[in-house]
Amino acid sequence: MARARGDSRRCLSVMDFILRIVAIGATLAAAVTMGTTNESLPFFTPLFRFQANYDDMPAFTFFLIGNAIAGGYLVLSLCYSMVSIIRPRAAGPRLLLLIFDTVMVALTTASASSAAAIVYLAHNGNASANWVQICQQFQNFCQRTSGAVIASFIAVVVLILLVFMSALALRRHSRQ
Amino acid sequence: MARARGDSRRCLSVMDFILRIVAIGATLAAAVTMGTTNESLPFFTPLFRFQANYDDMPAFTFFLIGNAIAGGYLVLSLCYSMVSIIRPRAAGPRLLLLIFDTVMVALTTASASSAAAIVYLAHNGNASANWVQICQQFQNFCQRTSGAVIASFIAVVVLILLVFMSALALRRHSRQ
Repeated sequence: MARARGDSRRCLSVMDFILRIVAIGATLAAAVTMGTTNESLPFFTPLFRFQANYDDMPAFTFFLIGNAIAGGYLVLSLCYSMVSIIRPRAAGPRLLLLIFDTVMVALTTASASSAAAIVYLAHNGNASANWVQICQQFQNFCQRTSGAVIASFIAVVVLILLVFMSALALRRHSRQ
Repeated sequence: MARARGDSRRCLSVMDFILRIVAIGATLAAAVTMGTTNESLPFFTPLFRFQANYDDMPAFTFFLIGNAIAGGYLVLSLCYSMVSIIRPRAAGPRLLLLIFDTVMVALTTASASSAAAIVYLAHNGNASANWVQICQQFQNFCQRTSGAVIASFIAVVVLILLVFMSALALRRHSRQ
């Protein structure tokens, strides 16, 4: 019975490790996609500047920094995840991972949501505030930033799953 | 020794209950403030419509719905929190609260961050996208929406603390 519980804890730890690698991919892909997005149109008028870059929007800069921090944390967290595979009975690393993962859920969600609000505005504009849509001009820019936001939301879902799994593992500790 | 652990678990449960009431206040205050914000200016031009309401911006509508859902959940969660006070050894309610609290961290952060991105834009505008600032005209509207966003971020911090406390309580279970 105790052996079966040890095996299920190890199985949870291995899934934790794999999901962390998926989240690293998603956050770093989001950050790199946002950071390398740059579109210039071959014409201009005195009223409009037809060049779009991620640092034109503070929300996109925050998105890049937030996802880079989350990606960096997830790389470092692989060590603790490995400790959980080697020593599945240790509750300390699980608790630490759960706490930091929760903070990263908040950081990644904040960066993805603020960027999503701006991407939505770029696609649709807002007639009440007289904010015009810019995606008709900057199609490539809008497609890439939308993709980056989707990747970041995938990372949020994976991070929430990681918190659930850490909580389940702590619960199993409590039943041993 | 076992009695001391039981007392500390009960203490955590009582703090959990109090923090939930604080979070209910913050989320509902945020939702009500956003929902009741409406400003009309006594003049207009053919170019601009000088009326501001929360449903002019999809991000503000999402903010209101997100905070209302979080507030409603927190009210319901008080029952489970009370079960934890009465039966501090029960790990089941703790685990359930931790899982739903984590989802609410994501929902509240998403609604607060997307609204914050729009409030920032309303205050500062964006020269690259030719989005003009609107807070010079709608000062009251901007002040109230900024206040609602701050209240929502306070709720996020409290929800993160609730997740930490549930994790600590589960850890204590594992050491009993």
